Amino acid sequence: MTAGEVTKGRAATGDATKKRVACVGVGNVGRAWAIVFARAGFEVALYDSAAGAVKRAVALIDRNAQDLESAGLIDSAAGLMAHIRPCEDLDEAVRDVIHVQESVREDVEIKREVFARLGDAAPVNATLASSTSALPGSSFLEDVTARERCIVAHPVNPPSLIPLVELCPAPWTSSETVESVRTLMREIGQHPILLKKEIAGFLLNRLQYTLVAEALHLVGEGYCEPEDIDAVLTHGLAMRWAFIGPFQVAHLNSTDGFAGFVEQLGGMMRTVGEDARTDYPWDATLINRIHERLAQKTPVADIPEAQLARDQRIMSLLHWRAGEYDGQDGDIS
Amino acid sequence: MTAGEVTKGRAATGDATKKRVACVGVGNVGRAWAIVFARAGFEVALYDSAAGAVKRAVALIDRNAQDLESAGLIDSAAGLMAHIRPCEDLDEAVRDVIHVQESVREDVEIKREVFARLGDAAPVNATLASSTSALPGSSFLEDVTARERCIVAHPVNPPSLIPLVELCPAPWTSSETVESVRTLMREIGQHPILLKKEIAGFLLNRLQYTLVAEALHLVGEGYCEPEDIDAVLTHGLAMRWAFIGPFQVAHLNSTDGFAGFVEQLGGMMRTVGEDARTDYPWDATLINRIHERLAQKTPVADIPEAQLARDQRIMSLLHWRAGEYDGQDGDIS
Repeated sequence: MTAGEVTKGRAATGDATKKRVACVGVGNVGRAWAIVFARAGFEVALYDSAAGAVKRAVALIDRNAQDLESAGLIDSAAGLMAHIRPCEDLDEAVRDVIHVQESVREDVEIKREVFARLGDAAPVNATLASSTSALPGSSFLEDVTARERCIVAHPVNPPSLIPLVELCPAPWTSSETVESVRTLMREIGQHPILLKKEIAGFLLNRLQYTLVAEALHLVGEGYCEPEDIDAVLTHGLAMRWAFIGPFQVAHLNSTDGFAGFVEQLGGMMRTVGEDARTDYPWDATLINRIHERLAQKTPVADIPEAQLARDQRIMSLLHWRAGEYDGQDGDIS
Repeated sequence: MTAGEVTKGRAATGDATKKRVACVGVGNVGRAWAIVFARAGFEVALYDSAAGAVKRAVALIDRNAQDLESAGLIDSAAGLMAHIRPCEDLDEAVRDVIHVQESVREDVEIKREVFARLGDAAPVNATLASSTSALPGSSFLEDVTARERCIVAHPVNPPSLIPLVELCPAPWTSSETVESVRTLMREIGQHPILLKKEIAGFLLNRLQYTLVAEALHLVGEGYCEPEDIDAVLTHGLAMRWAFIGPFQVAHLNSTDGFAGFVEQLGGMMRTVGEDARTDYPWDATLINRIHERLAQKTPVADIPEAQLARDQRIMSLLHWRAGEYDGQDGDIS
């Protein structure tokens, strides 16, 4: 399987059928979603309520598509752009779509309003997904027409480069909706995981910020410098986590598997967990100290350039992953 | 810089000078250390108190060296093996060494005894480092001759593939020892980080098991399945952490840098940290449930094969990293 195929989604999907989807809200996340759907062959309607936003978004998507083409991750930027349909009207955007991906501002009132409109304007059998990273779906999906088709589908930014998507149903989301969106996400080359019930931060941000909270404790109490934390990941933990997650790492670290590993190291696991200070009361002084240290290496003025370098590295890593994939349902491990 | 150079250590080090080191204890960790020193051109004395252990270790090191040669990560397995000197006597092993790396069993009494002997047998200016992953150096380094030269240098297993080393001085470790061992670790191509004071689990295992503790909470309370946790890392978080750590990720996620990121998302960071249940009282039932789930994918009988596949992937990732390194002091980011 080539890197292009990995990030384009499964073979023989969209192009023949030209199924329609709509991306509502065209910030960083919404634009990246448009790329994800378009490269899988879907016709993507782009809509944003802000005047001129869609036009600007098309130019930015075009630039990102060029980057993906240069990196060898899509065959043709022009081919991708041919799947993008800018719309100035919401009703027009959602006409005949099978799915709407909402990526507007993280404001519960705005989301509530947008979903009320989507519920009335979109085909009643279209699934409606929110990209929210912080709000539980139940807080803004209650009063939508046919609300059982609504779900949270939280991507990692940008979904055009990072495949994980967290599906988090509201209490009233139907199992048909879950299965339909899960299938769709796989069809476009993403890796969906399913939360069985709502929890603040879903999985990704809970794991990320739990680790960061302990890291703030370690730096705040003078055990190490911020760059040491980063090095523990880049030169240590992530060299396995890039292809096997923490449970599988443990499973493979004992010839008796996970149970054997815990029998051997469960004491340390428990001690560290109990000893962790994820409720560490970090304050602005600590945050600013870490900021200054990071800014010594990457001054704030250089961040846009560093972001481009980061995205180039992720694209390079996608090529590496593609070489490692064994074709088993997109699972690297 | 080629992948071979990355893992062989810095250019123009050992071969000319043939500095001597000793690896005491020849389990997985000790043998991997022997490879790390040997490929950097040091003459490595191998010693273990168990009868026949050194001879068996040489055969296993040879096999690993062949794998590294096949993967293009060293030029010649035979060249590496020429640097390995098996010893049946501790005094002979530590003669004229500049450094001893101890990797015996994780037992405080055994370590104490081994270091007492090393302190008397090794040259008084040789640094003495322990590979312990769990024991604070102060618990077994107190009564060593010239104890100021003793330090913990905790690797990630296997150090021949993963470069991070955690240096953790005991209260009496001299700053000269810290600097000397730090320089040595860089010379052999590892990435040392320094803890400023002792803490249980050092940095790597604290960060790892804090995340795992919250993962056990999420699986234990039915939010998700174990494979979802693993997917969050492999298809999400680690796609950045493989080359930029969590603080730098945050720094680059805001055009105002880390401080700007925390201004925007500090609320979620704090909530997640306070809400994390790293003290979750996991029990054998939960551990066995996770084990069974992991064993569905990788049966216990297949673990040795899966370990080989894992190590092949790490070697492949080392090649990827080598392509991404910018030559700035081995720092990938």
